[in-house]
Amino acid sequence: MKLCWIHPTTANDALAPLWEKLDAAVRPALAAGTELEFRFLPKSGNFVRSAYAEHINSVHIVEAALKAEEDGFDGVFLGCWNDPLWEAREVLSVPVGSVSEQSMLAALAMGKRLAVVTVSQKTTIAIENDLLAYGLRDRAIVRPVRTIMPESDAGLLLGAVADPHAAFIPRLEEVARGCIADGADIILVGCAYYGPLLRLSGYTEVPGTGVPVMDSSTVALKYLETMTDIAMKLGAVKSTRLQLRAPPREALDNARRSLSLI
Amino acid sequence: MKLCWIHPTTANDALAPLWEKLDAAVRPALAAGTELEFRFLPKSGNFVRSAYAEHINSVHIVEAALKAEEDGFDGVFLGCWNDPLWEAREVLSVPVGSVSEQSMLAALAMGKRLAVVTVSQKTTIAIENDLLAYGLRDRAIVRPVRTIMPESDAGLLLGAVADPHAAFIPRLEEVARGCIADGADIILVGCAYYGPLLRLSGYTEVPGTGVPVMDSSTVALKYLETMTDIAMKLGAVKSTRLQLRAPPREALDNARRSLSLI
Amino acid sequence: MKLCWIHPTTANDALAPLWEKLDAAVRPALAAGTELEFRFLPKSGNFVRSAYAEHINSVHIVEAALKAEEDGFDGVFLGCWNDPLWEAREVLSVPVGSVSEQSMLAALAMGKRLAVVTVSQKTTIAIENDLLAYGLRDRAIVRPVRTIMPESDAGLLLGAVADPHAAFIPRLEEVARGCIADGADIILVGCAYYGPLLRLSGYTEVPGTGVPVMDSSTVALKYLETMTDIAMKLGAVKSTRLQLRAPPREALDNARRSLSLI
Amino acid sequence: MKLCWIHPTTANDALAPLWEKLDAAVRPALAAGTELEFRFLPKSGNFVRSAYAEHINSVHIVEAALKAEEDGFDGVFLGCWNDPLWEAREVLSVPVGSVSEQSMLAALAMGKRLAVVTVSQKTTIAIENDLLAYGLRDRAIVRPVRTIMPESDAGLLLGAVADPHAAFIPRLEEVARGCIADGADIILVGCAYYGPLLRLSGYTEVPGTGVPVMDSSTVALKYLETMTDIAMKLGAVKSTRLQLRAPPREALDNARRSLSLI
Amino acid sequence: MKLCWIHPTTANDALAPLWEKLDAAVRPALAAGTELEFRFLPKSGNFVRSAYAEHINSVHIVEAALKAEEDGFDGVFLGCWNDPLWEAREVLSVPVGSVSEQSMLAALAMGKRLAVVTVSQKTTIAIENDLLAYGLRDRAIVRPVRTIMPESDAGLLLGAVADPHAAFIPRLEEVARGCIADGADIILVGCAYYGPLLRLSGYTEVPGTGVPVMDSSTVALKYLETMTDIAMKLGAVKSTRLQLRAPPREALDNARRSLSLI
Amino acid sequence: MKLCWIHPTTANDALAPLWEKLDAAVRPALAAGTELEFRFLPKSGNFVRSAYAEHINSVHIVEAALKAEEDGFDGVFLGCWNDPLWEAREVLSVPVGSVSEQSMLAALAMGKRLAVVTVSQKTTIAIENDLLAYGLRDRAIVRPVRTIMPESDAGLLLGAVADPHAAFIPRLEEVARGCIADGADIILVGCAYYGPLLRLSGYTEVPGTGVPVMDSSTVALKYLETMTDIAMKLGAVKSTRLQLRAPPREALDNARRSLSLI
Repeated sequence: MKLCWIHPTTANDALAPLWEKLDAAVRPALAAGTELEFRFLPKSGNFVRSAYAEHINSVHIVEAALKAEEDGFDGVFLGCWNDPLWEAREVLSVPVGSVSEQSMLAALAMGKRLAVVTVSQKTTIAIENDLLAYGLRDRAIVRPVRTIMPESDAGLLLGAVADPHAAFIPRLEEVARGCIADGADIILVGCAYYGPLLRLSGYTEVPGTGVPVMDSSTVALKYLETMTDIAMKLGAVKSTRLQLRAPPREALDNARRSLSLI
Repeated sequence: MKLCWIHPTTANDALAPLWEKLDAAVRPALAAGTELEFRFLPKSGNFVRSAYAEHINSVHIVEAALKAEEDGFDGVFLGCWNDPLWEAREVLSVPVGSVSEQSMLAALAMGKRLAVVTVSQKTTIAIENDLLAYGLRDRAIVRPVRTIMPESDAGLLLGAVADPHAAFIPRLEEVARGCIADGADIILVGCAYYGPLLRLSGYTEVPGTGVPVMDSSTVALKYLETMTDIAMKLGAVKSTRLQLRAPPREALDNARRSLSLI
Repeated sequence: MKLCWIHPTTANDALAPLWEKLDAAVRPALAAGTELEFRFLPKSGNFVRSAYAEHINSVHIVEAALKAEEDGFDGVFLGCWNDPLWEAREVLSVPVGSVSEQSMLAALAMGKRLAVVTVSQKTTIAIENDLLAYGLRDRAIVRPVRTIMPESDAGLLLGAVADPHAAFIPRLEEVARGCIADGADIILVGCAYYGPLLRLSGYTEVPGTGVPVMDSSTVALKYLETMTDIAMKLGAVKSTRLQLRAPPREALDNARRSLSLI
Repeated sequence: MKLCWIHPTTANDALAPLWEKLDAAVRPALAAGTELEFRFLPKSGNFVRSAYAEHINSVHIVEAALKAEEDGFDGVFLGCWNDPLWEAREVLSVPVGSVSEQSMLAALAMGKRLAVVTVSQKTTIAIENDLLAYGLRDRAIVRPVRTIMPESDAGLLLGAVADPHAAFIPRLEEVARGCIADGADIILVGCAYYGPLLRLSGYTEVPGTGVPVMDSSTVALKYLETMTDIAMKLGAVKSTRLQLRAPPREALDNARRSLSLI
Repeated sequence: MKLCWIHPTTANDALAPLWEKLDAAVRPALAAGTELEFRFLPKSGNFVRSAYAEHINSVHIVEAALKAEEDGFDGVFLGCWNDPLWEAREVLSVPVGSVSEQSMLAALAMGKRLAVVTVSQKTTIAIENDLLAYGLRDRAIVRPVRTIMPESDAGLLLGAVADPHAAFIPRLEEVARGCIADGADIILVGCAYYGPLLRLSGYTEVPGTGVPVMDSSTVALKYLETMTDIAMKLGAVKSTRLQLRAPPREALDNARRSLSLI
Repeated sequence: MKLCWIHPTTANDALAPLWEKLDAAVRPALAAGTELEFRFLPKSGNFVRSAYAEHINSVHIVEAALKAEEDGFDGVFLGCWNDPLWEAREVLSVPVGSVSEQSMLAALAMGKRLAVVTVSQKTTIAIENDLLAYGLRDRAIVRPVRTIMPESDAGLLLGAVADPHAAFIPRLEEVARGCIADGADIILVGCAYYGPLLRLSGYTEVPGTGVPVMDSSTVALKYLETMTDIAMKLGAVKSTRLQLRAPPREALDNARRSLSLI
């Protein structure tokens, strides 16, 4: 099985330590026969915190997903909580997984009420909208998506590659404890990168609470792996009625040409 | 006050009779001092029924909205039920109205439970997702968005410019009566063009039921007109906290450049 | 167009400075051709904080609304958050607007989650019941209607006519900041009088938050103005099926006679 | 214990057979020591199917409820599905029961999903609004309140006093079977008079379905009886915080004087 | 009428003072002709705080309920918030009441938004699940079931038999005040024993708030009394469609034999 | 990895063809290194359609799950839609999967609105209660769980082992088409045995609709496989706060001894 992890940004050498650590964190979780390739976007606005900017970036992500399917991948992983999950799923014929949906579904089977702690105010909006669209409000706490403050930046992220305990974990834990007070019994890390870093550092539970801090990325990737296995062995991928039915390819390509995507 | 109505397609001379009749239908509804300009998109996939194709088209629409604001319009109207309302509202500083949101809000003040009758299966999905995101499920019937069948095409549309009673109205009315049986007391026409055509033809109620068939386009445009008046006279446009707060322009433009939009 | 603003009380000379300032605040917001007349109730319990007392007062308000329609007004505005909106809409043939419904609908297009800050504990109940009946729970924060404490009285109100910054604004802002902490991105002033006073004084946002403090009265009146324009130009007023269908007039008058209203 | 059943109309000799049969139906259901008095309203519009007319009638009902408490009744029963339950409960100190609320609560303990079959279109609206305000939507079927057609009139009612099987039951049963098909497992008779008549006639289940047809009036009266017993023996009547806290009597009377009620 | 109150534990002489006081508290609330018998379980795990342990204990409770019906009781009361209400109701033909359901229904008629204060963390889960299954979320506050901390134990309980003001009430009141701050206007005591003890001690309201502290056990028992009276006089017990329809007895007994219950 | 599939019944030689075919259907779907053992219950009521009977059977299932964990299995699969999922998950330390929860979660990622077609009326209740407890109502159609009629029996089941097209599929398809008309875009087979049989026979979609008919058993088992892999590789099993926290073993065993389970 070949899986493609699509990064939401262009390649960025300054973050090379992150890419290495991410690889080291997630690859061992996969089955023996599962190949994983990380791909960056050829073009991207690179983490502009804005609904419209993310909307634009989603075009790059869907294009990368289409390319991945063409290149023979059996499953595609959208490696960011800002994702065009429904759009990608509509136009692809292989399983598409996202950090957001797959980790939330996993959380439903691990606890009663989830909360997501993310890394910027704009992202809280995007994730909460997803959670509502997934119909999962009743399985999450009030104000189910909250952000660390100050927001994350490149410094915090690279610092966490070295050691998340120094700066990132205290910031996350303060928010997480508020979530627990409001009824959360499982916390999802609302950023595709911090989750694996936390797990590698051994931080997998809010201390003394019994509340897991889920490495959403790796868990979600594992779910995609099984979705892909189901597709390959059982032939079950998605409904092709209404929402997820792919449009005729020529019509779709016509739209793509309007943005010079092909 | 200057309003800009943004069409979701490029100009299409074959539909010239439609554009003329649409103008004739909506312009008289505006206040004396309100100027209205219709604008087509410079590029578009033109009505590809697909979530991803509409996602792409939304980029063209937001760009046209940004251009309209730059050109001095006081309010921007997204003239299609497939719209990037939240994204446009985020990045603009003037009021943005949509057929969908504004006509649904108007319907809330005209009845108890609404239904939308639209013109293709894919559109039912897009509109229902909007309705859910607006939080209006409890004011709509079960399966609140339904489509005529067979779906609309250019022939049906041009026929309706001439006379909607011949082919379009029977198709719509069959669905509308099913909605009424399920509890609807107001029907919204789920296409920006058919609504004004129906009204011009005198068809404004499902016969014998007391249930209005709303010309959603014109009603929504009137709501945008007052939103714009409120902005100009009272200074109230939108919250600038979280969801609708515009990102720094340079960061946004960086994203736009990734698609060669600027 | 002639609009009638119905006060929820009898005339009260002691509040003359309020009536003058209210007029000065809202009239300039209307279109050139819109005439506005304020009317007091001939009889009223005058702000008794009680569901049953408000129920009684609603009779006076509906009667005044019926009278306004008879007198040729094109639209009727119920100028208090305690209003008999559905009852008035049922029996009138012209558009009826309320501070509550119209300002909440406007808020839906200006933000994501609203909160109402009102001026007495009893009013929180009435407004929250309205919000729930409008089906807008999902667009409001938890405990979406909250009151200043101590509650408003004539002294506070007259003081705010002179300068709301002295006493009213600090009381409101404390509550508003709690609402923002719970997720509100737009605040509605839950009293028909304080809203215009705040706006006139220049207070239109919770400082430093980006959260508008909406002058609900004026915004709602503007929405009624466009509803009335739609009625006059497009003929669309309301559904006449079920809930909003007027009863036969003679039967209705029979009921009215039981209270010696006619 | 003394209970007062308040009719929603003035006395009407033409319906004397109904009043006798109603008395014969409900009185034996009460405990040995429970006294029951039926009272008619001194004034009423008498069954005008209209929200505003019912709003007016509710004033007469609350006044009758206040009078009943003054006269020493220990509990007050609002004998119509159109009732001012919350308003009466606010201003009285003794328990107030309604056909609607008490029979729905009883139904929650007898089945899984209820439906109400009522006798006019306008009443469906009133009852559904109550059901929503009680927060019971999830325990009822879709379109939970439905009406017989043609609607009830005096002839049907008097006919049912003689024999409900001839005309009323077939009309009700047709609707009830539709409710069962939509998931109802208990049917409430949405009229205070038909329920006891049905039960007296031996019709207590939709034949062959296992679905009870509840005599809502008698069941609700029994619930009020126990609420009153709880008040008398345990002292527990209602919360006096916020919604149900009675206003100061002098202020309330001021409002009542505005309608010459006292 | 003969009612059977089923304790959720085996007899325990160490708690004899509790059993005596409980009897003294609830018996006087019943009607003259109502006989009440308390029964302990012959076997039980006795208050193991665990979903599976309670599931096991529920078997003992249903068996005791079946036995009570065989022994001629007219109504059965499940005397613990951990109860197999739906299962018992399915297999019995006489009314079954629970502290949980009956007291919540009673609370709906006494206030607007309820909260339950219980005595252990595990119980909060069980009760909240019941509340959700009853469909009453909208009538309860956020996090509607909360626990005293430290949790209750035998010492606290026996202490409360002597005087609940010393230790139990302060612990409960702290939680109750938090509930009121979150909007509760009625508090249910989430333990079948503490409720009667509180009432006997004169503690029936959170001081100074107008918020009743309901003795859920006695109120619920009164509701069962009237349910049983309704069954005996009107013949109405439950729907026998789907959920509450009893299985064929021989098939059921086959299942019971698998656990050597018969 | 060793997985244990727990049947909800005792072994039954009459169904030997079913057990063989089931094994043949699901085993090939697992990863190379996954061992699967089917276990029957030592005691069971064997498919009594009753909530209480299933409650009793759930005791046998949890006991079998505890035994499986003791015997070294890494994950436990509850092989029936009637399952004690939460109770088993509470007391086990290894992942527990169910047909119901895992297949519904999988369906969320394959479509928009699911429906379950099950094989008896009683089972519709059990599954719908689960669906509601999972918080997934908004992702399912109205009346989301429906049954074939006549209900399934041993003859139908054995017939389907031979060829499901003869009798079972027509019965299922009639119901499934009703679900699709009500908005379902994915159908789950609500019986652990028919799903694999359908898939083996090549029936995986309602013909001509694009709507998958999901073999819920195999899909759910695959999800358990990945949950177990996540547990083994990442250490993430469940929250140990509140609901899923295991009780002290001695206390639990005390409860189990009350039913002579140990």
